[in-house]
Amino acid sequence: MNKIPVIVDCDPGHDDMMALVLACHSPRLDVKLVTTVSGNKSLELVTRNALNVLHYIGADHIPVAAGCDRPIVRRKDHAEAAIAELRRHSDSIENGAHGASGLDGFTFPEENPKKVIEIRAVEAMAQVLRESEEKITLIPTGPLTNVALLIRCYPNLISRIEKISLMGGTCQFVFTRPFMEFNTFIDPEATKIVFESGIPITMYGYDATYSVLYDQTVIDRIASHKNQTSYMVSELLKAFMYRHNNTFKWLGLTDTCPIHDACAVAGVIDPTLVTESKMLHVDIETAGNYFDGATVCDYEDILGLPHNVEVVYRMDNARFFDLMEECSARGK
Amino acid sequence: MNKIPVIVDCDPGHDDMMALVLACHSPRLDVKLVTTVSGNKSLELVTRNALNVLHYIGADHIPVAAGCDRPIVRRKDHAEAAIAELRRHSDSIENGAHGASGLDGFTFPEENPKKVIEIRAVEAMAQVLRESEEKITLIPTGPLTNVALLIRCYPNLISRIEKISLMGGTCQFVFTRPFMEFNTFIDPEATKIVFESGIPITMYGYDATYSVLYDQTVIDRIASHKNQTSYMVSELLKAFMYRHNNTFKWLGLTDTCPIHDACAVAGVIDPTLVTESKMLHVDIETAGNYFDGATVCDYEDILGLPHNVEVVYRMDNARFFDLMEECSARGK
Amino acid sequence: MNKIPVIVDCDPGHDDMMALVLACHSPRLDVKLVTTVSGNKSLELVTRNALNVLHYIGADHIPVAAGCDRPIVRRKDHAEAAIAELRRHSDSIENGAHGASGLDGFTFPEENPKKVIEIRAVEAMAQVLRESEEKITLIPTGPLTNVALLIRCYPNLISRIEKISLMGGTCQFVFTRPFMEFNTFIDPEATKIVFESGIPITMYGYDATYSVLYDQTVIDRIASHKNQTSYMVSELLKAFMYRHNNTFKWLGLTDTCPIHDACAVAGVIDPTLVTESKMLHVDIETAGNYFDGATVCDYEDILGLPHNVEVVYRMDNARFFDLMEECSARGK
Amino acid sequence: MNKIPVIVDCDPGHDDMMALVLACHSPRLDVKLVTTVSGNKSLELVTRNALNVLHYIGADHIPVAAGCDRPIVRRKDHAEAAIAELRRHSDSIENGAHGASGLDGFTFPEENPKKVIEIRAVEAMAQVLRESEEKITLIPTGPLTNVALLIRCYPNLISRIEKISLMGGTCQFVFTRPFMEFNTFIDPEATKIVFESGIPITMYGYDATYSVLYDQTVIDRIASHKNQTSYMVSELLKAFMYRHNNTFKWLGLTDTCPIHDACAVAGVIDPTLVTESKMLHVDIETAGNYFDGATVCDYEDILGLPHNVEVVYRMDNARFFDLMEECSARGK
Repeated sequence: MNKIPVIVDCDPGHDDMMALVLACHSPRLDVKLVTTVSGNKSLELVTRNALNVLHYIGADHIPVAAGCDRPIVRRKDHAEAAIAELRRHSDSIENGAHGASGLDGFTFPEENPKKVIEIRAVEAMAQVLRESEEKITLIPTGPLTNVALLIRCYPNLISRIEKISLMGGTCQFVFTRPFMEFNTFIDPEATKIVFESGIPITMYGYDATYSVLYDQTVIDRIASHKNQTSYMVSELLKAFMYRHNNTFKWLGLTDTCPIHDACAVAGVIDPTLVTESKMLHVDIETAGNYFDGATVCDYEDILGLPHNVEVVYRMDNARFFDLMEECSARGK
Repeated sequence: MNKIPVIVDCDPGHDDMMALVLACHSPRLDVKLVTTVSGNKSLELVTRNALNVLHYIGADHIPVAAGCDRPIVRRKDHAEAAIAELRRHSDSIENGAHGASGLDGFTFPEENPKKVIEIRAVEAMAQVLRESEEKITLIPTGPLTNVALLIRCYPNLISRIEKISLMGGTCQFVFTRPFMEFNTFIDPEATKIVFESGIPITMYGYDATYSVLYDQTVIDRIASHKNQTSYMVSELLKAFMYRHNNTFKWLGLTDTCPIHDACAVAGVIDPTLVTESKMLHVDIETAGNYFDGATVCDYEDILGLPHNVEVVYRMDNARFFDLMEECSARGK
Repeated sequence: MNKIPVIVDCDPGHDDMMALVLACHSPRLDVKLVTTVSGNKSLELVTRNALNVLHYIGADHIPVAAGCDRPIVRRKDHAEAAIAELRRHSDSIENGAHGASGLDGFTFPEENPKKVIEIRAVEAMAQVLRESEEKITLIPTGPLTNVALLIRCYPNLISRIEKISLMGGTCQFVFTRPFMEFNTFIDPEATKIVFESGIPITMYGYDATYSVLYDQTVIDRIASHKNQTSYMVSELLKAFMYRHNNTFKWLGLTDTCPIHDACAVAGVIDPTLVTESKMLHVDIETAGNYFDGATVCDYEDILGLPHNVEVVYRMDNARFFDLMEECSARGK
Repeated sequence: MNKIPVIVDCDPGHDDMMALVLACHSPRLDVKLVTTVSGNKSLELVTRNALNVLHYIGADHIPVAAGCDRPIVRRKDHAEAAIAELRRHSDSIENGAHGASGLDGFTFPEENPKKVIEIRAVEAMAQVLRESEEKITLIPTGPLTNVALLIRCYPNLISRIEKISLMGGTCQFVFTRPFMEFNTFIDPEATKIVFESGIPITMYGYDATYSVLYDQTVIDRIASHKNQTSYMVSELLKAFMYRHNNTFKWLGLTDTCPIHDACAVAGVIDPTLVTESKMLHVDIETAGNYFDGATVCDYEDILGLPHNVEVVYRMDNARFFDLMEECSARGK
């Protein structure tokens, strides 16, 4: 069976880290490129994190390209402002779920000596699309800024995208406002561009990612492998459980924790991990005083509009963590 | 125990009819005034329905004043357009849940010979507030246009309002769009004025009203009373079950049906009917492409804003229909 | 020739004061009612000013009714916030064009012993409309809140309004933002309701009112009459010239000054004072980041919509001030 | 004196054609790249027109890259819809000012045998910026979509842009709505991105371009040169005068006509052609019912915000057409 060629577009972040481990060490995927985008942290920090993760897990042959440092239309500090608002309304711990570095809980022994490639993310994605014989699957786990700009700058290359498997959106009350999920909230216009692109999309929404929760047992299983990737993964899962559960106290999680972004990769590696999903019409609100940035999922098909997104509802918890353990164990 | 002086502001409508029967024939309430507002049907039709219901049930001593024939800010045909959109997206039956007359399923043997009083609803409400020694409870079961105008025209009389017990708003996916309930959707600006007025408010939301469902047994119990009010009520409940369930097919109701507006009256007659409620910060979205008109309930108190509305979650189904039967039986 | 029955709806303010002098002492007008509205100053202050002006000029037989203390939809402090923004962007003098009292530059020897009537402005207007045999002309010189509420609360009385002669709107760059005029900016939704009411409207826009400028000669002519009304008028005109020209320095006026609100009354007294006007389609922007509240005048008829407003362009400067002198001289 | 390296980003269009003739045949400019963008006509048509103009005037050594086929956020058919609305409100002639081809009035004897380069406009622009030793001047004469995407995709290259000399925006009543100019109206979000970029900008607004009007004498002077470029230019100027003046009849032009886009090039060739301009704070409205897309020029500095745009008010009519004649004569 041929490997599936993919581009991972991310803003690490603990869960993006896990997404990278899965993508780089699954025997099913061929990661052509990793791109970064401002989101969980500044572009500078998330790019550094992506480089260091790839280096540490033994995947530094994969080129990394830096992408957008802000949303397309929204204010440059839109993500920071959203995080600040969240913190004002909760007893969140210092520096939010990902900490000051974006990967709190692990210190890389050395910086990746390699740097980002000279060309920027959108151009680098276009180059991969142009040069690949097979169509490429995009896996965005941050705000959709880079992907949306790719679609607008290169309308000729849209047909070279096999599908988009994204972590983002939601269909329940989460974050500080109804229907808000961080990635889609941060760049609503980019989200709209992607949702309306006509490209096949699978959406691993914020709510769906809570159907996959790890606990100490999972951490221990991963830690039992003595390679350095498993070590890093177990340390970061441990730190993230603490930070996530204290940042979003109202969720009431104590001994379990989701690992959002990893879902979008896992579903490409093994689509049978998705145990429940539905094709729906999905859009995003781009105006409004309260709902600006909210996901709109027409569950009941009341609007009668085309089904543009496969919305994932649930995934197979047990097999998901088998995959996480397996890929971590295959790392350096 | 003194009777509670109330004003019922309505747009009958089958469920408004039931609200009127409860209000006029409960020994607990003293209905000072009934006012009408454009909503379920045109002002002309709902006013005629209110007059005829009062006449038929033996309550035509209660003055009726005609109110607003359109929302404060929205287009004159906003309600009609909303209903038309709903019908386009569903297999709804001709003329919607309330039929062409607004009270489909019953023909009054004669028109109420009395007419509306000379002054309009808002002024009539103000007069009651001015002249009453006790504070007045307002029970709006239609769009909040009249009540909002009362608040703006008579800031000096706000303190004369004991509380507002309203049917409207929602906290779930209903109607054609998320968080939409007809009454609040039709006049969002009026809703905002009322929600921000500082007056104590109990909100019987669209979702909460589905905790109170009648069935054929209830209809039969009411019909077993041989007075004409019970006859009318049973006929209209029967007709409404058919029309409602076929208009909102996606709700999947077959042998049961809610009677929304009656909840707001029942809760004033007997507050112990409310089995679950919570003080929340509630607002309404007045912009947005999808969510314009949506109710915003901050369940988790994340926004940290004052709790301005008691949001009803559930009511006591059995005792609710005991009350309906009792009040119907007390009618003419 | 019969007198023209009018209601003056105002927020004094120096120019509203002049509007009251004209209206009360023109032999052509019969002022049935004066109503007040929050605008230039708080409702409390402008109501006190209206009462005191009427008392001092010998017109305290005219009933005064207090109206709305805030715009229909906008924040309670919308006017204050707008004035504060204006001041932040200019070298305006303390307390703006009208000073702390709203009538800076004159101290009334005694307060009007009469108070406002018991009923509020909107109801009082309705009463006048109902009871008058002739149709009534409305002359609003403040935000249109009261008039818009009248239209919504009493759709049955719209036909009793002869016309609306208003000071408000603009068609040029004024105030802090393009096309902004204070009255229409303060309550855009009220303005929209009035503009769309179908009632004949003449609009004396902010720009048009700059075609009528008084100078020291005018003040001296008025002061030469020895009655107390002329004294008050001349004192207030003097104070207003100083305050206005220092508040709106960018207009570059030094020895002349407009008297905006008076234009809307003068045009009813003598329509031939309007030397240039045009029927246009006029609307108001109620959204937008910069233009929210801006007047939209379709000069070139490009939108092809019905002409709902007579927009005044110019007035006869010399004859205007003859009228001001004459009416002042006729006062107490 | 060194040549000024420029990129012309256009949507020909008669006036874009003139912009290309000026840019390619001025001895002062070195055109590194021509890019195209959907605007006056579809991307396909304007790209074909750009290729054919360059071929015919002897400039087909200049690479042409195709850019965006729609605005960033607005509907794909936003430009078509705007043009249709314009036509509905005027007696405009068939197919608007530029005709069905976009260059009505001239038939190229042969198609340019060269095609667009393989990479798309935004990437091609980035390549020029990366490879040039000198900073590059951008001259956009269509919607700002390509330039805005360049800014967002390549934040690292912003400093390589010398300045942006654009035709777009306005500060007067034009088009169908106040303050609307086609280019900025078509992609308001792109305009906002460019205006806020920090790059030095000179804006040749719609109104300013009416300070430069050609007439039959100008056409004759150009036609008197016997090279084929002058022939094409004179034919297209003749056709454009007819089409423009009949499309925008309300402007009342008969024997003269502007040539908008050429202004933005002329000002780079010879800045002394600008006889009046001012540094202002300029922004664009991206919301509102009437003013969405309107240019906001803070002439009086009332907002107190940084001056980000040099707004051109007037140009030297006589010397402008000397330049047009001279460059046309230098063509093939």
